Amino acid sequence: MIDCDVHVQWPDPEDVLAYVDPAQREWFRVQAQPLGLPGYPWVHPHSFYRQDLAAPGVVPGATVEEVRRDVLDGLGVDLGILNADEAVTVSLMTSPSRAAELARAHNDWIRERWLDEEPRLRGGIVCPAQDPQAAADEIRRAAADSRFVHVLLVGGSERPYGEARYLPIFEAAVECGLPVAVHSGGEGMGLAAPPGGAGMPTYYIEWHTLGSAGSIMAHLVSLVVNGVFERLPELRVLLIEGGIAWLPGILWRLDGNWRGLRADTPWLMRKPSEIVREHIRFTTQPLEHTEGRDDLLFEMLEAAGAPDNLCFATDYPHWDFDDPAFMLKRLPESWREKVMHENAAALYGERLGLVAA
Amino acid sequence: MIDCDVHVQWPDPEDVLAYVDPAQREWFRVQAQPLGLPGYPWVHPHSFYRQDLAAPGVVPGATVEEVRRDVLDGLGVDLGILNADEAVTVSLMTSPSRAAELARAHNDWIRERWLDEEPRLRGGIVCPAQDPQAAADEIRRAAADSRFVHVLLVGGSERPYGEARYLPIFEAAVECGLPVAVHSGGEGMGLAAPPGGAGMPTYYIEWHTLGSAGSIMAHLVSLVVNGVFERLPELRVLLIEGGIAWLPGILWRLDGNWRGLRADTPWLMRKPSEIVREHIRFTTQPLEHTEGRDDLLFEMLEAAGAPDNLCFATDYPHWDFDDPAFMLKRLPESWREKVMHENAAALYGERLGLVAA
Repeated sequence: MIDCDVHVQWPDPEDVLAYVDPAQREWFRVQAQPLGLPGYPWVHPHSFYRQDLAAPGVVPGATVEEVRRDVLDGLGVDLGILNADEAVTVSLMTSPSRAAELARAHNDWIRERWLDEEPRLRGGIVCPAQDPQAAADEIRRAAADSRFVHVLLVGGSERPYGEARYLPIFEAAVECGLPVAVHSGGEGMGLAAPPGGAGMPTYYIEWHTLGSAGSIMAHLVSLVVNGVFERLPELRVLLIEGGIAWLPGILWRLDGNWRGLRADTPWLMRKPSEIVREHIRFTTQPLEHTEGRDDLLFEMLEAAGAPDNLCFATDYPHWDFDDPAFMLKRLPESWREKVMHENAAALYGERLGLVAA
Repeated sequence: MIDCDVHVQWPDPEDVLAYVDPAQREWFRVQAQPLGLPGYPWVHPHSFYRQDLAAPGVVPGATVEEVRRDVLDGLGVDLGILNADEAVTVSLMTSPSRAAELARAHNDWIRERWLDEEPRLRGGIVCPAQDPQAAADEIRRAAADSRFVHVLLVGGSERPYGEARYLPIFEAAVECGLPVAVHSGGEGMGLAAPPGGAGMPTYYIEWHTLGSAGSIMAHLVSLVVNGVFERLPELRVLLIEGGIAWLPGILWRLDGNWRGLRADTPWLMRKPSEIVREHIRFTTQPLEHTEGRDDLLFEMLEAAGAPDNLCFATDYPHWDFDDPAFMLKRLPESWREKVMHENAAALYGERLGLVAA
């Protein structure tokens, strides 16, 4: 079983700071928010973390031992991909040079403190997307270690990722044989545009319902209509934690509009939904709770390319974590192998080093 | 048959200017965009209008005769509700006082040049939503004429409409016995936040796929979670032209989050999807084109409250106009009466003056 979204936590920001250029450490220490990363305007009313694991002042999952106990051994996960938690928002810092420094330090910290400690872990590469050339440089540097298996971008952004300025990031990923993962989050933080489509929402529940889904929808449509997959036929994109029940409806809209608006994007020679099927994958968590209509949900997902486009993820240690037992119980039997293992193995290919499993 | 979305056009901005305070007319004449309304950053690559009706320099549907020929007589529409086209974006003008003046003039122009000319037409009230108290005043003034049957807000906005500041608009509507219609459009124009959830999109196809749907989703969620329907139990909202295939997925997300995040919005005592079923209606156009899966679309819509929540609309004279014959062919037989007539008649109630039909 492959878990495509395990969040890596630090027990103390100083752990990561130890990897920052000593001359810059003080700058990161004196920022209002930890490490100068942008802060959320909304927070979960209880905690962002699983309450069965959290204690006052303690972030769960901040040690390799906990990830072994709670994920690898505890759930029978063969390979877990570590995605930055707060640090994925380096792209939303106003300073691109500080963002590049922190991204580099975070990638090195993951490599030495996590990947070197536990052979069942793999890493996502964070990079400063607000400076795409610097981001490409960091991708090439970090990707030299084959235990990094994807580039990790955050959902919140100044512009959708199909925009021409971001192309160096995707080119570097393809050059290194890496998929690009876009993880929801960060919408409305720092440099990011407001979430949803009508200005800053009021409550965390709005962000969690539409902010996370909305940025993922926007990047999907943008990457397709800007022709990024035409330029980079080998590119694969994994969309993490934006939900999936909206997918058939949005693909219908997109295909219909493509038919009516061919002159807007003449380089698109195929239906957008076909491009999505070939190039884009989705993680399961959070698979929508359907009020007893999982039959309908799976029929909808099938119309949009499932089960071939779904990869299992727990989102450990966040509050809305999905247990694999829960997922196995919900998934149609014929989907289970693909979703829990095969699709991720195909997406990451040799880089996943499946001999390690 | 009731058409909930006929767009009213002016042959010349001077027609509307004739209703503007003479001392202000010059201000409106010298603005870069017609009447000082904000301009779109993207446009349709051919035309916003039906090409079978448009001619160079001619906007179709700009006379009562054309609306009779193309909609009322031509399609057998018994009652058509006139919604402002460009003028719905008064809410996105930077100056609230100019917006209030233009809204007042536009409502008077609709009354005298359209409603007085054709008894089968009804009107939507435009108002300056950026100044909610002035908007409420204009709603109360215009609503004195019972041929105005809803308040009309634009999808693009600074903040989602559940925000406390907008409450006077909804209070005035309820006081006047009017539903509030929110029509997609205007996202990214003037004061409005960027469409989608990841910053300004690049192409018109992105706006038409996600910008219009995204603002409608955002207003829906915002109105529900801010408890506007708890404060105003008689309020009914009609969401126009944002699509509907996304609805079941978004309601699943919203219900699930409501269960997990009760402390965020403790005033919500019912599942959000139940509130939506009771208070919110949707127009059909543009009913998603489904690549041969209308069976699935209708099953999805049924899970989200159809056919009781759907009201027919043509969107005349826009390029993506829906012909009622096309709609009747697609709709399940048992839905037809409700969608084409009954639901709108129930929504508007006595104000629709159905004796006129």
